[in-house]
Amino acid sequence: MLTKEELPECPVATTVQLIGSKWKLLILRNLLQRPWRFNEMKKTLEGISQKVLTDSLRSMEADGLITRTVYPEVPPRVEYALSDLGQSMRPIIKAMEEWGISYKQQL
Amino acid sequence: MLTKEELPECPVATTVQLIGSKWKLLILRNLLQRPWRFNEMKKTLEGISQKVLTDSLRSMEADGLITRTVYPEVPPRVEYALSDLGQSMRPIIKAMEEWGISYKQQL
Repeated sequence: MLTKEELPECPVATTVQLIGSKWKLLILRNLLQRPWRFNEMKKTLEGISQKVLTDSLRSMEADGLITRTVYPEVPPRVEYALSDLGQSMRPIIKAMEEWGISYKQQL
Repeated sequence: MLTKEELPECPVATTVQLIGSKWKLLILRNLLQRPWRFNEMKKTLEGISQKVLTDSLRSMEADGLITRTVYPEVPPRVEYALSDLGQSMRPIIKAMEEWGISYKQQL
């Protein structure tokens, strides 16, 4: 989690600092549906590298947006899910979804 | 402008394709207030390079989100402003602003 001092003064910039990348926004979109495993996430995010997906998930975990749960199976199953904080970002993705729908209708 | 065929099927991914970067989101935030000139934009966006700002503005112009107006003065004044399409993205930035405000209050 970030401290107040590490955050920009502007609230938009604060949000952008946490999810201001193409991949984080798409990860958030996925996790708003349900928990996901690493490999199925990688398959859906066309063009993402292993490293960028790992880094994005770690950074979102460090920021308190997602949880990472390891299930003791063989091989171990790792699941990513949204925390309550991550869930609270739903209106942002919803606004993006609504804009995308209306944009595509105009084309 | 993009054609329907160039856009992802998912409406969220469509929006992310147009504004899915830290800098584009912050440029959008700025231009929702008023038109800006290149240099004052560069000053506000701490850490952005000349090249990335130029590329971001060009790409947003090509996508129909912003207009670029050259006023015939000496030296020429260039102003960037949001198009109606860009203005229609206000709810996205508004949702980011509201999230940022409430996040900072919890810290």
